Amino acid sequence: MKALALDDEGVAVVEIPEPEPAPGWAVVRVHVAGICNTDLELVRGYMGFRGVLGHEFVGTVESGPAPWPGRRVVGEINFACGTCPVCLGGLGRHCPARRVLGIVGADGAFAERVAVPVANLHPVPDEVRDEAAVFAEPLAAAFEILEQVHVEPGAECLVFGDGKLGLLAAQVLDGAGARVTLVGRHPDRHAFLQRRGIATMPADAEGLPPAALVVDATGSAGGFARALAATRPRGTLVLKSTIAEQPQIDLAPIVIHEIRVVGSRCGPFAPALRALARGQVATQPLIAAHYDLEDGIAALAHAARPGALKVLLRCRPAA
Amino acid sequence: MKALALDDEGVAVVEIPEPEPAPGWAVVRVHVAGICNTDLELVRGYMGFRGVLGHEFVGTVESGPAPWPGRRVVGEINFACGTCPVCLGGLGRHCPARRVLGIVGADGAFAERVAVPVANLHPVPDEVRDEAAVFAEPLAAAFEILEQVHVEPGAECLVFGDGKLGLLAAQVLDGAGARVTLVGRHPDRHAFLQRRGIATMPADAEGLPPAALVVDATGSAGGFARALAATRPRGTLVLKSTIAEQPQIDLAPIVIHEIRVVGSRCGPFAPALRALARGQVATQPLIAAHYDLEDGIAALAHAARPGALKVLLRCRPAA
Repeated sequence: MKALALDDEGVAVVEIPEPEPAPGWAVVRVHVAGICNTDLELVRGYMGFRGVLGHEFVGTVESGPAPWPGRRVVGEINFACGTCPVCLGGLGRHCPARRVLGIVGADGAFAERVAVPVANLHPVPDEVRDEAAVFAEPLAAAFEILEQVHVEPGAECLVFGDGKLGLLAAQVLDGAGARVTLVGRHPDRHAFLQRRGIATMPADAEGLPPAALVVDATGSAGGFARALAATRPRGTLVLKSTIAEQPQIDLAPIVIHEIRVVGSRCGPFAPALRALARGQVATQPLIAAHYDLEDGIAALAHAARPGALKVLLRCRPAA
Repeated sequence: MKALALDDEGVAVVEIPEPEPAPGWAVVRVHVAGICNTDLELVRGYMGFRGVLGHEFVGTVESGPAPWPGRRVVGEINFACGTCPVCLGGLGRHCPARRVLGIVGADGAFAERVAVPVANLHPVPDEVRDEAAVFAEPLAAAFEILEQVHVEPGAECLVFGDGKLGLLAAQVLDGAGARVTLVGRHPDRHAFLQRRGIATMPADAEGLPPAALVVDATGSAGGFARALAATRPRGTLVLKSTIAEQPQIDLAPIVIHEIRVVGSRCGPFAPALRALARGQVATQPLIAAHYDLEDGIAALAHAARPGALKVLLRCRPAA
């Protein structure tokens, strides 16, 4: 089958053997997959990953234990061991022995087919189209904020960054009853949020009133510093994206203003799928382009353009 | 009167006018004051402070509104405006217009007398001697951890750093029911904690089991990194001391392991005084030396020795 894979020579569309699922695993025929910034980091050498890229996908189960075959599914990306103290404590997403789909020790979804443990699968409601369902994984990461932080109704909230994750986080927090202002450098992306009643401001706006809850989804050291400065004393700053550079960071404001910095990563799929089914989160405005799997290299290049939104890969073999 | 003060020429014991208290303020005759690392930072130029140093003190009210004259007191260090939204929201310690005793815009307590708003005073129970009462301020900073973080009974807790704050924080967390291990480089300071049932480990110990609650009281970038590495996924790292250097910090582990970093500064005096009155916290082992106020320069030099514990200043005029 065809796959977009990374080896010592770099990334290429290659022919590889079909996946051979272990007991309790399913083989999923991938319909659509999404390119995440993490994929671009992996291509640049992050984690030393080798194999098929891709961890955001929607597809149909081709084979696997009942009742899964024939179901349209999305899949959680952390493959937990299920038996260590961390897993038994309910934190399988943090299992120290975990493999991670398309990131650590497991071939990913930029392929015609992908193997996933059935424990990781979630059926997709019929009313959620593939182009929306493929956002389940990043939208779950946005819902993770609600799992980690108590958001009070009417809480003032600033979201820094109008990339994919910022646009999703703003909608999730708005849906939870926070009064959200998105701060970002792409005003053309703000109109759909404004229509949904979410305030927006340009990234260079002066005099932002500090908020009790701030989300940094900028992915840059400068954005982190700006978000930290906009966090009220005793407030919470949710750090939603890894920063590749190791920046010089002045920790003193965190202590002086007694700020809580909360790192936040993968999240729960169930509320993400529910929000998609109810149309509570717009995903269409986040799509930059569609590519066929065989044009995967061009798709990665598109996703790597500064500020690019979501690039989707059509992975079904041509009929 | 005599005071240890900082001006453009540096720090010196000088003769200055008696403090002139505003309405609602008291003048306190200082018995004993404690030197904090912040004082040493101020001497090095931190915050650009000019005036009398010192924010840890115990003394007797000489003049001020009833019922304060004659009372033995300690005092909170943040002088809040009392009228801004932050103050009205109950966070006077974070008032943006605040002055801070001996740190920002207010003469401190390394003097024969100090002026303090009566709103900041706390009477000292008779059973608490001056040499213990002077620890009320740093001990309150240790109790701040309990105000910010829910410490579950029996929670595994690591405290990094066996300086003054680490030794106090370990005792406060132990008193709150956590199972505390102090990690520090001065084994000679660990015996009194061990006698109180608190575990200790040398700073270079290998294979520390990660804990859900970790306190960094090392004041160093290396200590922060070590404390972060010892924090369990989804755990809490309380950052208890400012780090003068702006270190290169890799924020990725905070995101990947979804760690909460909680900056923590000044705390509530009431539980600190109660703990001192009940003998629940040992302070005697934390005292390195006593100096008379007129020997303040030597006292600062002693406090600046690497790893020095608490240096106290006797501020009463010689009889």
